[in-house]
Amino acid sequence: MSGTEMAYLYIGASAVVGLIYGVVLILVLARVPVGEERGYHGNDERHLKDMIGIKTETKTRHNHHTGETDTYEEEVGPYHDSWEQVVWTLNKIATAVSNGAIAFLKEEYKILAVFIVIFAIIIATLVDELGTFWTTGAFVLGALTSIVSGYIGMKVAVFSNCRTAYSAINKEHGLTRAFRVAFRGGAVLGFILTSLGLLNLAILLSIYHYFYLNDSDENDIKRQETLRKLYENLAGYGLGGSTIAMFGRVGGGIYTKAADVGADLAGKVEAGLEEDDPRNAATIADNVGDNVGDIAGMGSDLFGSFAESTCAALVVSATSPQIADNYVAMLFPLMISATGIFVCIITSFFATHIMEVDKPEKIEKTLKYQLIISTILLTPALWALSWYILPRTFDFIDIHKAIECADKIVNITNTDIQTCITDNIHLHDVQYWHAFVCIICGLWSGLIIGFITEYYTSHSYSPVREVAESCRTGAATDIIYGLALGYLSCIVPTICLGVTIYFSFKLSSMYGIALAALGMLSNLAIALAIDGYGPISDNAGGMVEMIHLKKEVRAKTDALDAAGNTTAAIGKGFAIGSAALVSLALFGAFITRANLGEVNILQPLQFAGLLVGAMLPYAFSAFTMKSVGKAANQMVMEVRRQFQEMHKNPSYEPEYEKCVAISTQAALKEMILPGCMVIFTPIVTGFLFGSNAVAGLLAGILVSGVQMATSSANSGGAWDNAKKYIEGENLVKKSDPSFKEIKAAAVTGDTVGDPMKDTSGPSLNILVKLSAIISLVFGGFFAKYGGIIVA
Amino acid sequence: MSGTEMAYLYIGASAVVGLIYGVVLILVLARVPVGEERGYHGNDERHLKDMIGIKTETKTRHNHHTGETDTYEEEVGPYHDSWEQVVWTLNKIATAVSNGAIAFLKEEYKILAVFIVIFAIIIATLVDELGTFWTTGAFVLGALTSIVSGYIGMKVAVFSNCRTAYSAINKEHGLTRAFRVAFRGGAVLGFILTSLGLLNLAILLSIYHYFYLNDSDENDIKRQETLRKLYENLAGYGLGGSTIAMFGRVGGGIYTKAADVGADLAGKVEAGLEEDDPRNAATIADNVGDNVGDIAGMGSDLFGSFAESTCAALVVSATSPQIADNYVAMLFPLMISATGIFVCIITSFFATHIMEVDKPEKIEKTLKYQLIISTILLTPALWALSWYILPRTFDFIDIHKAIECADKIVNITNTDIQTCITDNIHLHDVQYWHAFVCIICGLWSGLIIGFITEYYTSHSYSPVREVAESCRTGAATDIIYGLALGYLSCIVPTICLGVTIYFSFKLSSMYGIALAALGMLSNLAIALAIDGYGPISDNAGGMVEMIHLKKEVRAKTDALDAAGNTTAAIGKGFAIGSAALVSLALFGAFITRANLGEVNILQPLQFAGLLVGAMLPYAFSAFTMKSVGKAANQMVMEVRRQFQEMHKNPSYEPEYEKCVAISTQAALKEMILPGCMVIFTPIVTGFLFGSNAVAGLLAGILVSGVQMATSSANSGGAWDNAKKYIEGENLVKKSDPSFKEIKAAAVTGDTVGDPMKDTSGPSLNILVKLSAIISLVFGGFFAKYGGIIVA
Repeated sequence: MSGTEMAYLYIGASAVVGLIYGVVLILVLARVPVGEERGYHGNDERHLKDMIGIKTETKTRHNHHTGETDTYEEEVGPYHDSWEQVVWTLNKIATAVSNGAIAFLKEEYKILAVFIVIFAIIIATLVDELGTFWTTGAFVLGALTSIVSGYIGMKVAVFSNCRTAYSAINKEHGLTRAFRVAFRGGAVLGFILTSLGLLNLAILLSIYHYFYLNDSDENDIKRQETLRKLYENLAGYGLGGSTIAMFGRVGGGIYTKAADVGADLAGKVEAGLEEDDPRNAATIADNVGDNVGDIAGMGSDLFGSFAESTCAALVVSATSPQIADNYVAMLFPLMISATGIFVCIITSFFATHIMEVDKPEKIEKTLKYQLIISTILLTPALWALSWYILPRTFDFIDIHKAIECADKIVNITNTDIQTCITDNIHLHDVQYWHAFVCIICGLWSGLIIGFITEYYTSHSYSPVREVAESCRTGAATDIIYGLALGYLSCIVPTICLGVTIYFSFKLSSMYGIALAALGMLSNLAIALAIDGYGPISDNAGGMVEMIHLKKEVRAKTDALDAAGNTTAAIGKGFAIGSAALVSLALFGAFITRANLGEVNILQPLQFAGLLVGAMLPYAFSAFTMKSVGKAANQMVMEVRRQFQEMHKNPSYEPEYEKCVAISTQAALKEMILPGCMVIFTPIVTGFLFGSNAVAGLLAGILVSGVQMATSSANSGGAWDNAKKYIEGENLVKKSDPSFKEIKAAAVTGDTVGDPMKDTSGPSLNILVKLSAIISLVFGGFFAKYGGIIVA
Repeated sequence: MSGTEMAYLYIGASAVVGLIYGVVLILVLARVPVGEERGYHGNDERHLKDMIGIKTETKTRHNHHTGETDTYEEEVGPYHDSWEQVVWTLNKIATAVSNGAIAFLKEEYKILAVFIVIFAIIIATLVDELGTFWTTGAFVLGALTSIVSGYIGMKVAVFSNCRTAYSAINKEHGLTRAFRVAFRGGAVLGFILTSLGLLNLAILLSIYHYFYLNDSDENDIKRQETLRKLYENLAGYGLGGSTIAMFGRVGGGIYTKAADVGADLAGKVEAGLEEDDPRNAATIADNVGDNVGDIAGMGSDLFGSFAESTCAALVVSATSPQIADNYVAMLFPLMISATGIFVCIITSFFATHIMEVDKPEKIEKTLKYQLIISTILLTPALWALSWYILPRTFDFIDIHKAIECADKIVNITNTDIQTCITDNIHLHDVQYWHAFVCIICGLWSGLIIGFITEYYTSHSYSPVREVAESCRTGAATDIIYGLALGYLSCIVPTICLGVTIYFSFKLSSMYGIALAALGMLSNLAIALAIDGYGPISDNAGGMVEMIHLKKEVRAKTDALDAAGNTTAAIGKGFAIGSAALVSLALFGAFITRANLGEVNILQPLQFAGLLVGAMLPYAFSAFTMKSVGKAANQMVMEVRRQFQEMHKNPSYEPEYEKCVAISTQAALKEMILPGCMVIFTPIVTGFLFGSNAVAGLLAGILVSGVQMATSSANSGGAWDNAKKYIEGENLVKKSDPSFKEIKAAAVTGDTVGDPMKDTSGPSLNILVKLSAIISLVFGGFFAKYGGIIVA
């Protein structure tokens, strides 16, 4: 077997094993018997009355002596008489959530289908050479993979959340079991998405290699140039993934937060209800939102990062003569991800089989250990991979200059070619271990960013507790403290990224940056697992509330959910960090494609671009946040109306589907403008002002977007957990007269944070990445036709 | 008389005329007879009872039939029996405010004195050549001027605010008179500060010229180099101004907002009192804060901008052989400011003598017209100046390369020198009208930024009204909408700045940027006047409330104050825009000093610097906002304690001085850390990582800081005016049951906005400018000793 076949086998094997592992996990999950049998795992009828809430009815009585009428609450028995009824209700709600999510995604995908067709035509016209569809094909495949990823993610999530809820009912080991179910749900997501992405990319790569490289090029430089162009075409795959992710994140983000904010404002703040009270008409929409925003959106997002960083690494590595000569070394970026899948499978056993989560405190620790273990295991594995696969030393050439050199020579000989290569090397003697250092910088930076995010968003540490304390003086101080916390939390991640960029850049130039991005994403499966775990437990908590189980059960799911808030924040930190590295790597690839050589910001266009670029994350956040605000307003009005109906007519049942419709409509309508802004700004800038302006623009978007995304995500996470901390009576007891006010302040903070952490923040990652990959894909177009206003 | 003498005469004359005009305005103000006579301007005894509020006392009565005791309010007559009493009370409060401000500034200046000594030693050691103190001297002088400016500003403000309050009492023409007094107060500030700054700088320049250029240099290039070094030393003046402004803005900002937030939370939100209710112990501190933060801080800030942009223009113009050869052309930057003073004097007559402010609607318009008129008048004036003063065409050389060239030649002849100059021209044939276009771009950009700021922060337009509407669904949506508004408001100013930078850069390189900054600052006197007008009317409103005048009087000062909020926001937009241009010009001067030639962000250090730089505004905002939060918490506790005392003992008088002490202590303690962060970050970065890292850092701070400062200032301004809009019963009437809740939501938004618009936002300007001028001053040090970790 040749080296190349071995490499493909390794990549293919990892993807197939990952997929099989995902399916196995689904089968394990399916053993939780929602809707099939009862009495599973000790949930026998004896426990029934310990677990089911007691129904009360408001009755009026007339006092004959005083002539006055008053109302009182009378217990009329448990909400459910048997486990069958519990399971039936759970199923009903899960189906409503699932149907809402499917309905939304279908509507969204219809719009996206139109978009994909239009954008494919644009790409085919402006980017692909006449009669070929390399980039267009890759784009469409990437877009379809992203759609499938999002859909699978959502399906897995709605499959897992009701099972998590059901497992939590178990009296003895409820927490352990519910945790495992939620974690496995997240893991299915992680393994299936990463494996699918890797498999698709590997197949696409081999097909493109087979057809594109059909004609043998006359010399080494030409061959390198052909390879580079091939990978630039392949970048369409990343572009497809990211465009879909953009709409998924923005649309899903608006959906989920319109519902969440609306539900909180009308239900918790105004009517004084608990979270997820079934009387609140927006609760189903809220739970649907978790699945379409946090799960489907995030799945598409991280799939996009993975695809883009691989493309960027491939484009850059084509400019190294030694790597271009050695197909196995060329496949190195994909093999990093393959190694990641193997290591993550091993890591996941620690959560499901080795560490026992029997106390709420252990949840966060177990999830955190997942990151630590995978990082530790990956370190030697990736060293071995680098040592085994990469050439001992390799160089990078300035391909445009080398071609120019070669073109000048009339009778090309091998010696001439060698001279052209040697004369235009811009980075000498990169050692295999330099590449390893880059990967490791990325990998460990990701871990540090994860930890620092945890520190700033978990209520186990002082920052969130300070925010909670500040609720004593009202919502305003809560928000001031929360904003300050978010701003402060940018320091360490930025320095980590700065150090990683410095070393990677210094050691292996843009190849190093791409490797750092891949290193950070190498434990993607685990990151997705712990990230997906959050919305699954959040939904489970909602369902437990909606089926009227007792507070003890809710306490378990709340503990799962609080840890989920933190891991969701970790996931966001991770997504932002990797987006920054990916974007920089794509930026480097763009510079090569546009043949800029340098980006001197002491030039008018570049600096103006930099300044305007730094503004775009603000404009983008403004659009998305306002969309949430508007939609939430509509939601509040609708929920209020329903409360009034309920007041008039006690038998009135909340019309959940009306709220679902509001969220769906708002999300679909409002995602268009910001989405188009992100997609067309680089294209229009390049067309009008040329590549130099685009280079400035990208750098501006990157450096400003990273800060804004980090601070938004962490402020939001902190407010959410400060609220959870207060609701858990850690600050004052419920009996304290100030409790209600303090809680109201915390809820206000949480509500402000909702669109920041789940709509604008995560969408900013994609702004950062997408603008870079669009520029890369359209780089050739800019170079040829761009700059019609100023050269 | 030589051309140079004429030029100095022109500059000196404008400064002297400006100072005289300021003094005349003070004399006019002094005619408002606070504390001297009574019955002024129709305030005769007959009007007394129309204007004075009625005092009520809470009495208890015992019902003998039912045996119950209840309380009722009984009117016990007007608060004051004569105008003398009114004036006496007004004086008492004005004195308390004035004393509080003076006490704080004294304490602050003590700390600053220590800082100046330490920093002067650092500069003398690291920057100045052995035995000389050129930079150190300029630094100390700049710092002292800044301190004097701040102090004068504060004195003028406390002189004007009680006179504004008193003028508002007038029954017939109260609004017109109060407006004029407040505007004149602001104008005194504007004219005295700009004239003083210009005069000082002109004197310093001529002294330095006289002594520094004593030895005649052997050739043209050497002379240019000496000139450039001289102006680099002179930049110490700008550094002195900006360092003091930094502490003024941060310290003053923390002071004012700790008091304001504390007063609002404890008084308005919790106890349900009106703004400035005298029972609220924090009101005096709040009013003191307006003077030390908004007035003294802003005065120092804009003085710094003016000094720095002039220094930057001088440094850059020394690299033009034609300008360096022509001392009159060298003085061009100062003559722009001189022209500005003359034009602004003419403009101010429109507000005080031509436009009649007899209705509240006219206030904002009149202030806005000031900006428009001065801009229109300045356009031909500055064209004439450019045409008359500048050489027809001029070039800019790369001075380092020219020196290198000259150094290589053994027997230097004039022809050799000419060849060295010609060979190293990096910008050919700048026409005098190119320079004019740069100035005009800056000037008109400033106007557009002013208008767009008004659009986003005045409640005459839809953005603020939308924010006000969103209060219907609570504080959370108010804040979401306000944040989105701030983000959105970055778009136009950034594009204006981008266009200005592009054209100025393209036409006359860094000289163009410095001219654009000076153009934007050419109507500084007017900008300061309308900016200073805000806090003066705010204070007047507070005083009217505190001396128990009737609602009608308060309505007049409220109208003045609402317009003041908008003009304060305009002033901030202006300050940010000019800070961006100034910072870029200084950045250019730094690049020349550090001999970098280019800033290629596709290099590891530069990009890492850019990323970390973009983070610094976030870190800085975090520190300042949290400081306000902490201090406000203390304030709330103190005010609550005093309310409880009052509750126990009705004759208890609020202890204002305790609140003043809390603000003072907090401000002085909390300003140290962020201040040192700003000052030492560039120095340490340059020392450890060298000039290239600093270049990246500066660009990052600039592009990210501009957005954050703009959005913070505008969000804050919008919340404040949304609250005013609601308080003015424009959304719902006071009688409406929802009024109280809507207002509470608006107050929460305003409170969040307070530290954003008055502490962190304005301090960010200085972060942007100060880091640039520090780098310029320490540029020689970095070039010699910097980069000890990485070269």
